[in-house]
Order: sequence, then C-alpha cells, then structure tokens
Amino acid sequence: MPYVNIKVTGGREAPSAEQKAELIAGVTDLLARVLNKNPETTVVVIDEVDMDNWGIGGKSVTERRKQS
Amino acid sequence: MPYVNIKVTGGREAPSAEQKAELIAGVTDLLARVLNKNPETTVVVIDEVDMDNWGIGGKSVTERRKQS
Amino acid sequence: MPYVNIKVTGGREAPSAEQKAELIAGVTDLLARVLNKNPETTVVVIDEVDMDNWGIGGKSVTERRKQS
Amino acid sequence: MPYVNIKVTGGREAPSAEQKAELIAGVTDLLARVLNKNPETTVVVIDEVDMDNWGIGGKSVTERRKQS
Amino acid sequence: MPYVNIKVTGGREAPSAEQKAELIAGVTDLLARVLNKNPETTVVVIDEVDMDNWGIGGKSVTERRKQS
Amino acid sequence: MPYVNIKVTGGREAPSAEQKAELIAGVTDLLARVLNKNPETTVVVIDEVDMDNWGIGGKSVTERRKQS
Repeated sequence: MPYVNIKVTGGREAPSAEQKAELIAGVTDLLARVLNKNPETTVVVIDEVDMDNWGIGGKSVTERRKQS
Repeated sequence: MPYVNIKVTGGREAPSAEQKAELIAGVTDLLARVLNKNPETTVVVIDEVDMDNWGIGGKSVTERRKQS
Repeated sequence: MPYVNIKVTGGREAPSAEQKAELIAGVTDLLARVLNKNPETTVVVIDEVDMDNWGIGGKSVTERRKQS
Repeated sequence: MPYVNIKVTGGREAPSAEQKAELIAGVTDLLARVLNKNPETTVVVIDEVDMDNWGIGGKSVTERRKQS
Repeated sequence: MPYVNIKVTGGREAPSAEQKAELIAGVTDLLARVLNKNPETTVVVIDEVDMDNWGIGGKSVTERRKQS
Repeated sequence: MPYVNIKVTGGREAPSAEQKAELIAGVTDLLARVLNKNPETTVVVIDEVDMDNWGIGGKSVTERRKQS
C-alpha cells in the first residue's frame, strides 16, 4: 500500500520510458524487500520538473547549469 | 481551509474540463458535509499523470494497459 | 488507481475516525462515479495539520482563531 | 535541507522565468533568515497548475475567472 | 537533486530507524544507478501515516485489517 | 490562491510557533510582491519531519548529525 513520489528534472534531462520503468520496478522491489510491502498495491508517481521550476542553493537549475 | 490533491492518469485517459469541475464541486461538498468546512476556502488541485510516470504492481500503467 | 491527499486542521479540530472513514468512502465513490475509477485501487491519505503549521491570509490558523 | 513546494496557476497566468527565479531566491533567503537553514541544500519546486485543474469555492479557476 | 517522498503506514506497522535508513540508502542508490543522479543532493522524506488516515478500496486500513 | 508546502526537520530542530508565523507571513508576502497574488487566499502548510525520516546523501539526518 505504500505511495512513492519521485521528482526529477525534466526537459532535456527527462528520464526515458525505460528508465522510468526501472525506477518504478526498483522502488517497488525495495519496499517489498525492506518492509515486506505488497508490490501489487505499491503506487509510484514520477514528476518531471522543468529546470526553471527547480531551485537549489537559491538559484534555478537553469541558472546553475549555465554557470557550471 | 482544507487542501485536496487528486492525482489521476492523464493523456488519453485525462478527465474532461466538465469532469474536473465535477470532482472539484464533489470533493468540496464532501468536506462541507462531513466536516462542516467552509467551501469558500477549500482548495482542490488535480494532477494528470502521464501513464509512463505512474506505476502500480512494479510496472508503469503504459505496460499494464498493453497486457490487459 | 487515483491517489487523493486531503489536508485538514488537526488538534482539537481533528476529524474523528468515523469522519475520516466517511471522507475515504466519499471521495473513492466520487472518483468511481465521475471517472469510472476502480475503487479497489483508489488510495486516500488524510493529513491532520497542526493549527500553528497552517497559514492563510499570512497568519497561522492559531492566530486567526484567536481573532475571530 | 528544507524542501519547499509552491503551486501557482499556470497557462496565461504562469510566472516568467525571472519571477520563478525571484521566488526561489526569496524563499531560500527566508528560510536562512528565520531558521538559519543552509541555502546550499534548500530545495524549491514550483508547480504551475492549469486553471481547469485548480478549484476554490467548489469551482475551477477557469469558471471563476469567467464570472468575475 | 531528486526529491523522493515515501508514504507508508505508521503506528504498530511503522518502520524501525534501521528500516528507514535502508529505504533512504536504497532509493538514493537507485537514482544514482538508473539516472546517474548525485547522491549528495538526493533528498528523501518518509511519512508514516496513521492507519485511520489511509484508505484503499473505500475503507481505512484500520477497517481492512479488522476484516482480514 | 497559491499553495505552499514547507518541509523542515522537526524534533529538537523544530521551529517555534513564532518562527512558523514568520515563515507563513514571509512566504505569503513574497508571493504578493513577486506575482501579485492575493494574500487572503494564499495557503501555507508547514511539515516538521522527524530526523530519522529525512535523508540526504543516502543517510538519515540522525546519522549525519552524529558524524558532524
């Protein structure tokens, strides 16, 4: 019954459908292994966040990628 | 003052504007009826999640729809 | 498969177990009725938020309740 | 280490990249000033919500904008 | 920079500190392996949800545990 | 109408009621100043997360505080 939300940067950094499937399988498996949770009712939602909309260190990722 | 977030699959399964209006009205009404919450300050946010980005049973909805 | 999160004030305004059961049943039913979603996989999570931790109009609910 | 999520209406009301950068800088600064949190690990995610998908007072913002 | 939120049932089903550490390490590692994300800035937040506050199939987990 | 969720560590690092009131006032003001949002309908929810339940760099904050 667990619910997992994963937020990663999207746009040109967006994960592929295959990578998203791997994340879903991997985190579902982790919850089954560590907490014995039923995979059938484990829900995973992945959000792809635009780089203008994600900030860390007081700056958007867009600005950080320009600087580095 | 309640805040409600509803996540459903989007893409070709996305709700219409009319259905979204029904969800907003329905859940606001439910909170007024059950908890006597003021509809004027009840906030509802609906997220439409891509079928590649939603997983259940360790698989994305995209994969599940193919199998069923 | 929908996922619903409902946030309401807790503490002395917290809903009872019966009221929470009514919210869960009501919103699950709403999604089945409006969007034909399967109740068996509809997940609802209710968060009870302390009145110091909820703000509206720039003030915490604790302060607002004092003034009204 | 704080995590902040800001949801605002999108579409024709969406903030510009400059406004989003100001929100990220402003909220990171607020957490450093009030709680002495390290800006380097303060994460901010801004969600732009479609006006059909945001409800208040039992109506979507789309409907409310029409009436006012 | 990913942000992950994991919600599981709490109370007598709450994970131990060791299990929570395993979830944090496991999901951080998964994101590094699948998406090459930097573990140093991967944030994980675990929420333990009371069994009265979690619903599936239109019933709270409290009610479901009684029936099974 | 904006909705803001702020997650910070709780327990012995939990903000005081005064600090929470400052965060609520500050972020509401920021949204009014930058995006001209109406403070009356700006909602802020603060979550205090247990240090065992917050991870960064693959470790819980509890473990990190011990090491530093």
